[in-house]
Amino acid sequence: MNKPLHLSTFIGCEKPYMEAEVVLFGVPFDGTTTFRPGTRFAMQAIRTDSFGLETYSPYLDKDLEDVSIYDGGDLDLPFGNTEKVLGQILAYSQEVLEDGKKFLMVGGEHLVSLPTIQAAYQKYPNLHVIHIDAHTDLREAYLGEKLSHASVIRRCHDFLGDGRIFQFGIRSGMKEEFEWAKEHTYLERFTLDTLKEKVQELQDVPVYVTIDLDVLDPGTFPGTGTPEPGGITYRELLEAIKHLQSLNQIVAADVVELSPQYDPSGASTAMACKTVREMLLTLVE
Amino acid sequence: MNKPLHLSTFIGCEKPYMEAEVVLFGVPFDGTTTFRPGTRFAMQAIRTDSFGLETYSPYLDKDLEDVSIYDGGDLDLPFGNTEKVLGQILAYSQEVLEDGKKFLMVGGEHLVSLPTIQAAYQKYPNLHVIHIDAHTDLREAYLGEKLSHASVIRRCHDFLGDGRIFQFGIRSGMKEEFEWAKEHTYLERFTLDTLKEKVQELQDVPVYVTIDLDVLDPGTFPGTGTPEPGGITYRELLEAIKHLQSLNQIVAADVVELSPQYDPSGASTAMACKTVREMLLTLVE
Amino acid sequence: MNKPLHLSTFIGCEKPYMEAEVVLFGVPFDGTTTFRPGTRFAMQAIRTDSFGLETYSPYLDKDLEDVSIYDGGDLDLPFGNTEKVLGQILAYSQEVLEDGKKFLMVGGEHLVSLPTIQAAYQKYPNLHVIHIDAHTDLREAYLGEKLSHASVIRRCHDFLGDGRIFQFGIRSGMKEEFEWAKEHTYLERFTLDTLKEKVQELQDVPVYVTIDLDVLDPGTFPGTGTPEPGGITYRELLEAIKHLQSLNQIVAADVVELSPQYDPSGASTAMACKTVREMLLTLVE
Amino acid sequence: MNKPLHLSTFIGCEKPYMEAEVVLFGVPFDGTTTFRPGTRFAMQAIRTDSFGLETYSPYLDKDLEDVSIYDGGDLDLPFGNTEKVLGQILAYSQEVLEDGKKFLMVGGEHLVSLPTIQAAYQKYPNLHVIHIDAHTDLREAYLGEKLSHASVIRRCHDFLGDGRIFQFGIRSGMKEEFEWAKEHTYLERFTLDTLKEKVQELQDVPVYVTIDLDVLDPGTFPGTGTPEPGGITYRELLEAIKHLQSLNQIVAADVVELSPQYDPSGASTAMACKTVREMLLTLVE
Amino acid sequence: MNKPLHLSTFIGCEKPYMEAEVVLFGVPFDGTTTFRPGTRFAMQAIRTDSFGLETYSPYLDKDLEDVSIYDGGDLDLPFGNTEKVLGQILAYSQEVLEDGKKFLMVGGEHLVSLPTIQAAYQKYPNLHVIHIDAHTDLREAYLGEKLSHASVIRRCHDFLGDGRIFQFGIRSGMKEEFEWAKEHTYLERFTLDTLKEKVQELQDVPVYVTIDLDVLDPGTFPGTGTPEPGGITYRELLEAIKHLQSLNQIVAADVVELSPQYDPSGASTAMACKTVREMLLTLVE
Amino acid sequence: MNKPLHLSTFIGCEKPYMEAEVVLFGVPFDGTTTFRPGTRFAMQAIRTDSFGLETYSPYLDKDLEDVSIYDGGDLDLPFGNTEKVLGQILAYSQEVLEDGKKFLMVGGEHLVSLPTIQAAYQKYPNLHVIHIDAHTDLREAYLGEKLSHASVIRRCHDFLGDGRIFQFGIRSGMKEEFEWAKEHTYLERFTLDTLKEKVQELQDVPVYVTIDLDVLDPGTFPGTGTPEPGGITYRELLEAIKHLQSLNQIVAADVVELSPQYDPSGASTAMACKTVREMLLTLVE
Repeated sequence: MNKPLHLSTFIGCEKPYMEAEVVLFGVPFDGTTTFRPGTRFAMQAIRTDSFGLETYSPYLDKDLEDVSIYDGGDLDLPFGNTEKVLGQILAYSQEVLEDGKKFLMVGGEHLVSLPTIQAAYQKYPNLHVIHIDAHTDLREAYLGEKLSHASVIRRCHDFLGDGRIFQFGIRSGMKEEFEWAKEHTYLERFTLDTLKEKVQELQDVPVYVTIDLDVLDPGTFPGTGTPEPGGITYRELLEAIKHLQSLNQIVAADVVELSPQYDPSGASTAMACKTVREMLLTLVE
Repeated sequence: MNKPLHLSTFIGCEKPYMEAEVVLFGVPFDGTTTFRPGTRFAMQAIRTDSFGLETYSPYLDKDLEDVSIYDGGDLDLPFGNTEKVLGQILAYSQEVLEDGKKFLMVGGEHLVSLPTIQAAYQKYPNLHVIHIDAHTDLREAYLGEKLSHASVIRRCHDFLGDGRIFQFGIRSGMKEEFEWAKEHTYLERFTLDTLKEKVQELQDVPVYVTIDLDVLDPGTFPGTGTPEPGGITYRELLEAIKHLQSLNQIVAADVVELSPQYDPSGASTAMACKTVREMLLTLVE
Repeated sequence: MNKPLHLSTFIGCEKPYMEAEVVLFGVPFDGTTTFRPGTRFAMQAIRTDSFGLETYSPYLDKDLEDVSIYDGGDLDLPFGNTEKVLGQILAYSQEVLEDGKKFLMVGGEHLVSLPTIQAAYQKYPNLHVIHIDAHTDLREAYLGEKLSHASVIRRCHDFLGDGRIFQFGIRSGMKEEFEWAKEHTYLERFTLDTLKEKVQELQDVPVYVTIDLDVLDPGTFPGTGTPEPGGITYRELLEAIKHLQSLNQIVAADVVELSPQYDPSGASTAMACKTVREMLLTLVE
Repeated sequence: MNKPLHLSTFIGCEKPYMEAEVVLFGVPFDGTTTFRPGTRFAMQAIRTDSFGLETYSPYLDKDLEDVSIYDGGDLDLPFGNTEKVLGQILAYSQEVLEDGKKFLMVGGEHLVSLPTIQAAYQKYPNLHVIHIDAHTDLREAYLGEKLSHASVIRRCHDFLGDGRIFQFGIRSGMKEEFEWAKEHTYLERFTLDTLKEKVQELQDVPVYVTIDLDVLDPGTFPGTGTPEPGGITYRELLEAIKHLQSLNQIVAADVVELSPQYDPSGASTAMACKTVREMLLTLVE
Repeated sequence: MNKPLHLSTFIGCEKPYMEAEVVLFGVPFDGTTTFRPGTRFAMQAIRTDSFGLETYSPYLDKDLEDVSIYDGGDLDLPFGNTEKVLGQILAYSQEVLEDGKKFLMVGGEHLVSLPTIQAAYQKYPNLHVIHIDAHTDLREAYLGEKLSHASVIRRCHDFLGDGRIFQFGIRSGMKEEFEWAKEHTYLERFTLDTLKEKVQELQDVPVYVTIDLDVLDPGTFPGTGTPEPGGITYRELLEAIKHLQSLNQIVAADVVELSPQYDPSGASTAMACKTVREMLLTLVE
Repeated sequence: MNKPLHLSTFIGCEKPYMEAEVVLFGVPFDGTTTFRPGTRFAMQAIRTDSFGLETYSPYLDKDLEDVSIYDGGDLDLPFGNTEKVLGQILAYSQEVLEDGKKFLMVGGEHLVSLPTIQAAYQKYPNLHVIHIDAHTDLREAYLGEKLSHASVIRRCHDFLGDGRIFQFGIRSGMKEEFEWAKEHTYLERFTLDTLKEKVQELQDVPVYVTIDLDVLDPGTFPGTGTPEPGGITYRELLEAIKHLQSLNQIVAADVVELSPQYDPSGASTAMACKTVREMLLTLVE
């Protein structure tokens, strides 16, 4: 009887940890989400539906079967205690980086990018962040809490400082946030048109890429908690990922804010899956 | 115990009637809808989900918090008696205009634009109408009834006459309707490309804008009763609204035909919410 | 223009606070829910759908129009900080009781009953609790957290002590919980058959009633986060509520764990609405 | 090429009109429905899903294949003009009865039973009505309209008078309606327990049976516009239909208020289908 | 880095094959389903949602943690080639039985019980079958195919012969099937009332139990392809499983016909999960 | 009583077979679909929802009312026996072509195009195929089966040979398939940009057009079994159909892979309906 237990990894990510160049892991946390929760279900849905994809990318002409990726599963997190959650994510990310690997983290709400960016910053003090999103995420606090999905990039600025954050696709925020960004970050409104150019500037520094999938138009990608109309198409996102190939020091990345239950058709989950595949193939050498 | 009852207005529309420059109100009527009813639920869904939006528009650089808008709630309408329903809408619209205010009406099926356009015409006899829609709405009658969502623009022509109606995005109708339009209205098929130019022509006459959200492609905006493929993107609609800023005498407007239950993801409702926000900010000086 | 803003109260609960005998309020919190979140949406759905009910109960022969109930809206809660949330609920409940009123709280996850029962206990030290639920809720801790929906009745026992808690309909828990209950609470497995008899014993002491709607069979009531098959019918719950009429000192109550989005048919929400109506009419003299 | 067009009848109802003993027809009208429309889709869904059933009833030991039933399709109705709609239904029902046939009408909202009961009354002046429903439907008027789904049985009383209406399963209404019923109808609250006995009394008079499917508990049958918890099980409805076999002069019947879109599982539609099959087999000799 | 790959077994079924007393495995096949496919998704959904259950059964007072069960995953099956599929299932079942273990198979459509019952019959020639279902499943052929979900019990009779098949809860079939059953099987219509008595008769012979979950009323359990109203409640099914404890030679069992996507609430899947837990605990000594 | 049975044809396709120039028919088969079944429901949904369309196409300025199309209904197919199914489709297609008519077949999964292309090839040995799809469909076999939706174009190549197949919009496949295509077919990746030019080359040879609707981006068209992000917009598909008007010998066509249940909004079905209308009007002279 040699049938093994069914291992539910992302398609083509079945290498052991020791051999892996890139670690994929999920962070099923949506504990500060105020409007519509559900990103906790993202990674589970992504793993299951990844089997509707091929392992080969005709965009990058690379194949997951040919590279070394370990699917580390999901972190087990204590809901209701945000600080403890962030601590666990930080510890895991640090460990992966210390072992000389890169990672792709899949959220969860955007707040979970805070500890993963922190871990990358600790290892690469010259870290720059490419932030693709519909929202500024630059609030000083939200409902009195400084640790919020609406504040995550502002919290990253706390340690990264000016000139390190590059924001694209932004189409929603308070007026104050747009004003603040003028002083402290690079922010392109509505589109990704300048991404290619900025990638050129960043090609030799360590870069972390955080993709909030709600940058996509909700007409295309309804499976997210805070749908913001007027976003980009999936082909535009694919194009952006192709530009990222020029980065020589991309050290880690994340894909966040899929809420699969808001799109029972599975189309949003399929977009998340394809984004994960393309980003994994971007992270490997 | 000072917690007030929860007032369910559209976000940022909490000014009292007396101080308001613009009145927002809902008309939850879908009584002549033959195919798939449900626009009666639109305004309720729009109010609830408006809290997923910001009050600030980075497109128009205006903020709902800075202007004076009253949310007048929904009209209570007797289903099954279409003439009585239209009479009530007419009376309410007249009252708002007589009080020197503008209004944004949210439907409901498109037939409810008939009395609001009538009210605007009574006050502004030189009224012109910008009509953004997938359908011609120019039938003389539908299933024997002259008061039908498929006839609403034809009924408006009954009193407005030739040269006053400008139709954009139209991609569905009987051959006769397209023929009739050649004589009596301006009709652009499929796109909004000539809207900018027509707005220039209309910039100094009183204009009413009626937006049937099914002008959007149903792939983007499935939450409507009569989905007609081949429509515009949400970014194209945003662009059109920006062009409307050149109108110096926009006197009232409406946004109709959201049927939120056909899009449980909430994406269609989010588009309706953002359209309402942008149109409110267009109506204020 | 005298049309008021639409006040979204539960049907028939429009009395001012000062005159009210009973206060209805919502606690939209599901921050420790590990399996499937969504009870935060319960009260909003209940208010909207309450208009599908009549105000008159033919079961109790009482009418909401004839009694004095204030709908206090929902508490605004900081997600991600459980202790702060519980503190706010406690403060609100204390205030209502100090003003000489009773309350019906609508959750939210079951953890939100902890502060409301605490508030009742502070005012009525001889408090007894009737707990109707599918789950024991008697864990010492869950995922390392003592403040969890799975521990709420155990936490109540911390201050109430033995002999004060009466559990009915329980059909799920760890073996240890069932063992523990034998020493510390009264626990009826699977059904409510002994409720009538226990109510007789409790008729002259202060009683708090907490109804976790997942006591209903999920075939009947699928709109909940942790569906546990084998539960009671809605008619059995109605019967139980009729038995509660014999309680002479019922001081407060709650109805928790509706997650309306898991039952888009609205049937589960309708059951929650009717339970709220019947419990409100039970609380008034 | 002999493949015929697909005739979408209810399963086993393919006899020509001339030979038919019973006529089945649909009335897709929900024009006075205030809360949640959709009964217009009932008959279409019932025809499609009837093919999940067998034609044989083990309850009645009869088979649709062995009897003569014509499926007359659906009436084409002008939405928005209630009086015209009722006139068309009346005319069709009269014609069927004049041709010496019985009918089973499938709604639609309950108001459509008014003209079918009128037609039966015109032919059988001694008509008695068995009314199975959750709601009294005895309002004098609703939102100012006397022709409303909430008034349909009251309108029937206008011509039938006292002693002719027998109501079962009623669990919702205004207090006034319950009071009024004491004088004018036979009304059993909550259950169908006395149906068997009343059928004995009525076995030799002409009887019309109107079944509002919302008599079923919404936990069992969520596919209806006004779900009212606390209803009967489907087995109880089957039992009631078995009792109806004792009626010697059942002249026509209807099954109303399925709204299939509220129950996408198809379970509610399946119950409606089975009820239609059992009622058809009840109507044939 | 010691975090293991996430093993997606049914809750508490993590023993290695060698030590296991019972093997759980899934057969995701619905290739002959004519009406509504989807049972292929059952086992995946059951594994995921099993984590909403406890491992302890208060009904049987046994705990999955205390027994030895191996979750063998799902068979990989070639859709479109029914004979090959059945051959693979047979081979796997034979292997498990030859290794001295029992199994619980989870379908898939009911046809997949044919090879598992065959395997059990090969090992236990005196095999008796307890068949709990809404449908007779006794057709000689369906649409010309002898290998069909509607013929599975008839195919079992081909080798088992008369007096070995005991059917309960049956409420749908052709008249011919009911007639045929009178000669060849024991068949109880509509209910499970005689199950307890029959179990007594069978307590010392080898028994295979096949549970088609559509025996449950679709109002309770809508997640199935051919909903047949008038079925049993979940409590009645639990009661039946308790009666099965008297069987001294229960050698294998299956649970089939969950189609989880027809019940997005998860309630049907929860019932399937609980049935699997109870049947696993029934199979172990 | 002259009301006919309701004939459920596609809108405007009510001509008798003898007079028809084009035959429309459905093939409700998804028996080799491994990922997510449901295309069997496509044609039924398309017929019902076609009544939300007009018969007039403003794109082609033609009207279904003015041409001769027969809706032949759906083939009755034995699930579970793929070879028999393909044989029946072949026979039907041959018969239509022999009668001097063209056809538009609506799937079903893509495998059903194999026999229809075979039939066209038998009549037109110089047949060329235009294949619009997201997937290469060029596998030699899938899960060991040569007759699979993933192999359909490869199977067509078996008899058509090199130089006859023109593929557009392809964005998913194994690396080997893309390599193989370089030798044997014309394959445009990602877009339809070269379609216009290729149509010019093919304007005087017999052409069969097979449209797999999953060429559309799943954000636009989620109603399909294998959503592949990065596809074309519906306006791009409309544009492509306009280019097809230049073909002088288009002999048959198909539209496959709608799975309506994955898009309950109806938007995907509406796109399929409009595609069917445009293709019917393309096939007529």
